[in-house]
Amino acid sequence: MRELIAYLTAEQPRINATLEQETSRLNGLVQPVAAHVLKAGGKRLRPLLTLLFGRMLGYGADDIYPLACSVELLHSATLLHDDIIDDADLRRGNPAAHTLFGNTKTVLAGDVLLAQANTIVARYGDARLTTCIAEAIMATATGEIEEIEYLRSTEHPQETYIDIIKGKTAFLLQASCQLGAMVAKATPAQIQAATDFGMNLGIAFQIVDDALDFAPSAKDIGKPVAGDLREGKLTPPLLMYRDSLQADARKSFVRNFEEGTFTEDEILGIAASIRETGLDVRTRELADSYLAMAQAALDTLPECPERLMLGQTIEYVRDRKH
Amino acid sequence: MRELIAYLTAEQPRINATLEQETSRLNGLVQPVAAHVLKAGGKRLRPLLTLLFGRMLGYGADDIYPLACSVELLHSATLLHDDIIDDADLRRGNPAAHTLFGNTKTVLAGDVLLAQANTIVARYGDARLTTCIAEAIMATATGEIEEIEYLRSTEHPQETYIDIIKGKTAFLLQASCQLGAMVAKATPAQIQAATDFGMNLGIAFQIVDDALDFAPSAKDIGKPVAGDLREGKLTPPLLMYRDSLQADARKSFVRNFEEGTFTEDEILGIAASIRETGLDVRTRELADSYLAMAQAALDTLPECPERLMLGQTIEYVRDRKH
Repeated sequence: MRELIAYLTAEQPRINATLEQETSRLNGLVQPVAAHVLKAGGKRLRPLLTLLFGRMLGYGADDIYPLACSVELLHSATLLHDDIIDDADLRRGNPAAHTLFGNTKTVLAGDVLLAQANTIVARYGDARLTTCIAEAIMATATGEIEEIEYLRSTEHPQETYIDIIKGKTAFLLQASCQLGAMVAKATPAQIQAATDFGMNLGIAFQIVDDALDFAPSAKDIGKPVAGDLREGKLTPPLLMYRDSLQADARKSFVRNFEEGTFTEDEILGIAASIRETGLDVRTRELADSYLAMAQAALDTLPECPERLMLGQTIEYVRDRKH
Repeated sequence: MRELIAYLTAEQPRINATLEQETSRLNGLVQPVAAHVLKAGGKRLRPLLTLLFGRMLGYGADDIYPLACSVELLHSATLLHDDIIDDADLRRGNPAAHTLFGNTKTVLAGDVLLAQANTIVARYGDARLTTCIAEAIMATATGEIEEIEYLRSTEHPQETYIDIIKGKTAFLLQASCQLGAMVAKATPAQIQAATDFGMNLGIAFQIVDDALDFAPSAKDIGKPVAGDLREGKLTPPLLMYRDSLQADARKSFVRNFEEGTFTEDEILGIAASIRETGLDVRTRELADSYLAMAQAALDTLPECPERLMLGQTIEYVRDRKH
């Protein structure tokens, strides 16, 4: 991953400067909320994907940075609204925005970031780009709604879980890749490859996230261990755990899962059992199957340094430990 | 207003059918929330403005209906998010969405409607349209934030109030007019006339709304009389009332306004005094000055049936009693 890390180190200051510049134009009351969620925010994987696809397919201009940041702003907007929805107190180990700024400013700051993402993309004057970001917003909100619809349900198959995470996570990664390819005026086949790469990388990203929910280090990043079990999300480790149980134990698991009545000891016991029986590892193997599809899509594109680094984002998703 | 009423009666079924069609594609969980807010929703003034400007400036195609409805969807999205922000129990006399569906679905349904508005506009493949709607979303959210910033403040001048209502109300009416003119490939001067008409009509619309807040019939439309006084919004009638007071009474008003400590009797007394001293009428005269500017903008456009009806929207805003 040496090349990817070097690239990220080189590009991150420019990405962060663009995010700062774009949010500095927002209303003064929104800025601290935007700064808070953006500061907490990860590795800038989404802007990086736009950059790499744009550069790989021949777009050399500097004006790619705002486009690359549009999806990060969109992602931040969804985090703000999620905080209210989940009523979470922490976000990546930091206080959730609504605990610092209240629901009102958090809802409105989310709306402003959504609007800013749209405004930035509209500047490029390309209807494909605006359609892409509009559909990504729609898919993300719809995915979150579907997730809520299936909370505490144990009846739905794994396909439903995949549909949910496509919406809530993968579509934004797909859009990041598509925006880069589209602004570079890529061929339809290349845009399709960017779409397939982003979608499969995004699905794998969320599956690995759901495996990590049972990792002993989860609490180090400000999440309680087995948060999905507590919230009633039937992620792959929990689905496999349920299927591994005998009739009586299974009936009891299903009842407690549906009613949200596990004790703290039972939760920690299930998490330990998932680790001991290797269900977290099997979950990562499920992610690998999507990463293989991402790799296959990438292989159709011209060999170049950016393709190498995009291949390393696959490794990054596969190997991440927190 | 005969021509306007006949036109509205003829076009409303088509507008409502389009709204239904566009929301029927949304996730099943969102549909009842969208249907609830759209059903409660007024006279479709925003779609009507898009239609009238589009038709007046020569756009005859049927595909104008989704464009006209995009701003109504956007408006509905802001109403959903407002309900959460205000923590209001009623919206136009009906239960507010969050009391029926909860905060989570209400936030997400708002996001979906915002996304749907953007998706619809992106379909037309015209960057001016997407920029227009993106900026309208931004202005609306920013206006609401500014309104919150100045809640319970008595120090700001009337210009600040005008800035706030430009954002929270007038920009969406302006965008409705602009979208119609833009899709009709109007000249820059015509688009400017649509902009000026929409902005001034929108400012007047909100000023009249703020006058009506002290009308005895306010409670008939599901709002408590003097809601703005209760919430601490220094609207023109309240600003004029404050300025009419002698030093001691004024000091007491300011303190109670800033601290939100008026008794119910005091609130009803202030509302009665505003009516008796004609401050609601003077507020309407302030609205008239903006309506005159809307009329002046309209007068630069070619004489035709649509121009006549747009003139009647000015009368509608001026004369409305609830």
